[in-house]
Amino acid sequence: MNFKEVMALAKRRGIFQPAYEPYGGVAGLLDYGPVGVRMRRKILALWRRQFVIETDALELEGATIGPEALFRASGHLSEFDDLLVECNECKKLHRADHLVEGGDALEKEALIAEVVRVTCGGCGGALGTPRPFNLMFATSIGAGRGSTGYLRPETAQGIFQAFPWLLRQNRGKLPLVAAQIGRAFRNEIAPRQGPLRLREFTQMEVEHFFLPDAESSLPDGVGNVVVSLLPANGKGVEISISEAHAKGVIISPLVATWLARCCKFILDCGVPPEKLRFRQHNQNEMAHYSSDCWDGEVKTSVGWIEVVGIAHRGDYDLKAHAVASGREMRVPAGGGSRLVERWIPNKGAIGKQFKSAAGDVLGQLDSSAVPGIVVGVGGKKIELDEECFTLETTTVQEMVFPQIVEPSFGLDRLLYVVLETAWRNKDERGWLALPKVVGPYDALVAPLMVKDGMGERAKEIHRELRQKGMDVYLDLAGSIGRRYARADEIGVPRAITIDHRTLEDGTVTVRERDLTEQKRASIEDLQ
Amino acid sequence: MNFKEVMALAKRRGIFQPAYEPYGGVAGLLDYGPVGVRMRRKILALWRRQFVIETDALELEGATIGPEALFRASGHLSEFDDLLVECNECKKLHRADHLVEGGDALEKEALIAEVVRVTCGGCGGALGTPRPFNLMFATSIGAGRGSTGYLRPETAQGIFQAFPWLLRQNRGKLPLVAAQIGRAFRNEIAPRQGPLRLREFTQMEVEHFFLPDAESSLPDGVGNVVVSLLPANGKGVEISISEAHAKGVIISPLVATWLARCCKFILDCGVPPEKLRFRQHNQNEMAHYSSDCWDGEVKTSVGWIEVVGIAHRGDYDLKAHAVASGREMRVPAGGGSRLVERWIPNKGAIGKQFKSAAGDVLGQLDSSAVPGIVVGVGGKKIELDEECFTLETTTVQEMVFPQIVEPSFGLDRLLYVVLETAWRNKDERGWLALPKVVGPYDALVAPLMVKDGMGERAKEIHRELRQKGMDVYLDLAGSIGRRYARADEIGVPRAITIDHRTLEDGTVTVRERDLTEQKRASIEDLQ
Repeated sequence: MNFKEVMALAKRRGIFQPAYEPYGGVAGLLDYGPVGVRMRRKILALWRRQFVIETDALELEGATIGPEALFRASGHLSEFDDLLVECNECKKLHRADHLVEGGDALEKEALIAEVVRVTCGGCGGALGTPRPFNLMFATSIGAGRGSTGYLRPETAQGIFQAFPWLLRQNRGKLPLVAAQIGRAFRNEIAPRQGPLRLREFTQMEVEHFFLPDAESSLPDGVGNVVVSLLPANGKGVEISISEAHAKGVIISPLVATWLARCCKFILDCGVPPEKLRFRQHNQNEMAHYSSDCWDGEVKTSVGWIEVVGIAHRGDYDLKAHAVASGREMRVPAGGGSRLVERWIPNKGAIGKQFKSAAGDVLGQLDSSAVPGIVVGVGGKKIELDEECFTLETTTVQEMVFPQIVEPSFGLDRLLYVVLETAWRNKDERGWLALPKVVGPYDALVAPLMVKDGMGERAKEIHRELRQKGMDVYLDLAGSIGRRYARADEIGVPRAITIDHRTLEDGTVTVRERDLTEQKRASIEDLQ
Repeated sequence: MNFKEVMALAKRRGIFQPAYEPYGGVAGLLDYGPVGVRMRRKILALWRRQFVIETDALELEGATIGPEALFRASGHLSEFDDLLVECNECKKLHRADHLVEGGDALEKEALIAEVVRVTCGGCGGALGTPRPFNLMFATSIGAGRGSTGYLRPETAQGIFQAFPWLLRQNRGKLPLVAAQIGRAFRNEIAPRQGPLRLREFTQMEVEHFFLPDAESSLPDGVGNVVVSLLPANGKGVEISISEAHAKGVIISPLVATWLARCCKFILDCGVPPEKLRFRQHNQNEMAHYSSDCWDGEVKTSVGWIEVVGIAHRGDYDLKAHAVASGREMRVPAGGGSRLVERWIPNKGAIGKQFKSAAGDVLGQLDSSAVPGIVVGVGGKKIELDEECFTLETTTVQEMVFPQIVEPSFGLDRLLYVVLETAWRNKDERGWLALPKVVGPYDALVAPLMVKDGMGERAKEIHRELRQKGMDVYLDLAGSIGRRYARADEIGVPRAITIDHRTLEDGTVTVRERDLTEQKRASIEDLQ
């Protein structure tokens, strides 16, 4: 399927459509319908199994509105913007990087220099000077004058500010894997139709906090994963994670580990391996906080679509929030404590030596005073020797900011690429070859015909299978062929058909979606 | 537990805490932590089973930002406000209905009249004139001048605007049960601490669409449910749903049906029956769209807390959106079609009678013209008789707006009342007696001690149980008593302890939370 066909299928079959469609729609906002909500839920559940349960992650569900101070600290207030260019003639607004070929890879200054050479794509008029447009949605919190707040542009900052609390929940220990599923908001200048560039979208994020020197080696079961990599300064390569790490293609073992996990997850969602690659950001493309970043991209009819970003965020975020909030966000360094020696003025010795002037001498000594310091006493300058001090030895806990590696998925885009790449055609038939784990239902239950008691029996079987825990639905309307076709179109893996024989011997027909093979099975054996 | 103790437990054990706590917190916003997210997820899953799966509801997941036109149509732009009063002296802002005893039951005019008599609770100064403050968070969508948008104050409007699409997904048929889980936002003037009056909260809403005359009787399994009702004009009564309906205490069968479902669900979450009542709104309290409304309220240490509202919204919402959007939101009436007769000007007859003036005559006839109409021809007035018309009989499909009954839960408040009412104390021990279905984990897995291979065996058993699908966690730290106490405090129903005997015969100790009974069981039998 191409983009247009996915959009048509999504609308027709209740996967998604533009939000507020009766009001003409609002660009960049979607409604997910009955089938779409189910697919999202399945993808979320799979993600949660692999990224939360298997990694023993601590989950957080924070607020979507955040205070200005948070986003000043995170850098979003000053950095999170696109360059906006207005046409002097028709007043149309353009994103500067869309006006220039390869504009998204240029630095700000270079982009501004390039934009001068182009004219309005709409009317051909001259363009104004590019100006930054912050992509956060602003609002006001509280009555009266209120205080400025923003809708979070990523769920990550909510995790960072909650780090001290999460660390207590983890009994003060690192590593700590935190995870959050939730909405994020970006006031895109030019949202794309459908789920590819949304103003409101769902993220599935992990923030892995670890000690600076704790990235030692790849954990079990990761090294053998084969990935398709496109390094910033090199050619694309098919390579195992262990080799990619050994050869320095992916420097951080944790970036490599999460990249392997992301690869497995995307493939489990049904994306074919040959359509998945991980592309490294070049320096200009990298976010302000990031030291290394790989995008998981899927090849579609509209180009390579990013579905996940794996970023090494270093200690940028926790440092920023510690400074801005005044809260301790460091942890004891792995190497434990260290001895610190400090000279403390010896009041007794100074009293003996200086008598009534002792108070005056002590007043001239601050915490940096060491033997050899010169003080003024009655107009004379006197050097204090070691006798006037005591050497104090204390054990100091060295504190460091944890490092962070973040794999961050966009659920909406992931669903899109899963839909587009799962579509199959053969002869007249079209179907979504979704893996069972992300299909909207486990099975369709359908009577061959509603008459002769088959309809009633189908209802009973539907009820029984549901009580067994199967995620089934009942379809009574139209010919059986039409019902199969409808099920195929939304990726239901199996159809269970109740026919005349069912009433006699308790068996049903089970039709597999991909092969359209039909087998008889007894109702008890279904699972 | 009282309110303060719930708050302390929630913060200590990672259930929830004020959001942005390192930044001093933002009133009305919460962070849910690892244990809280799990409890929320369990409550959501139970709700979804009872309100979505069992009712075959169509789920929607819409955008949280909505366009101004939507909220103008819904009435939120003009009606969704609180009266705000500023102190002339200290400039403190008050909610008018908080200044007057029983203020929330007064109509606007009465409230304004009452506020004149009081002074500022803070400084005793004179108060200004009350003015309306709209409770929606406003923002701007798009670059440049943008267009005004609001964060949805309820998830319901998203369902209403999507009704035509959902109806198509339901193949044009009513009844249609639609459901949505999602965030809603209210810019409260005076948010309360904790989850009781939040600026950002999670709703679990059902909108049940049905034909006006289709509310016939109570469905099976509903009539016997006994509820505690407090009618607007009457005394509290313990009564079965069928009796409440028969006696006219609850007039609408669908309101009664959903109230029964809500009652069952709240009790399944662990709220004791004697602490749950359903209170009918009086006329002043009722929202602008509602014709009958019952609040499910739970008795807590801070009074009766509303956790669900069951409202008969009539056809208010669909009518409003149909008018505002121009989109058809009616459905064919249950009674089918009806015959409509209409007079059509007979061009032939008029031509014969009026010759060259026929065109002039026809020009004077609009669609409302019937025999007997007087037209001007060449300065004369002439009455047209039946000869000049044809009587056309057509079949018209009568269209009606569906009626709506809405049960709408607030997840945050529900979690609060579940926590408060589930707490038990006995001797030195305190525990959350949560039903298994809403507890954060199925079981704790803990070695008696880490040494002698018990720690390793515990890890293995933890892994095995997880693969079996059990939602278990491993706790290795501290004495076994402390680990039991920690599990009790967050409502883990069972503890599975690995001891010396486990290594010998493969049995473990299973401790039940509520009775602290300990039994031996073989690992294979655990489920």
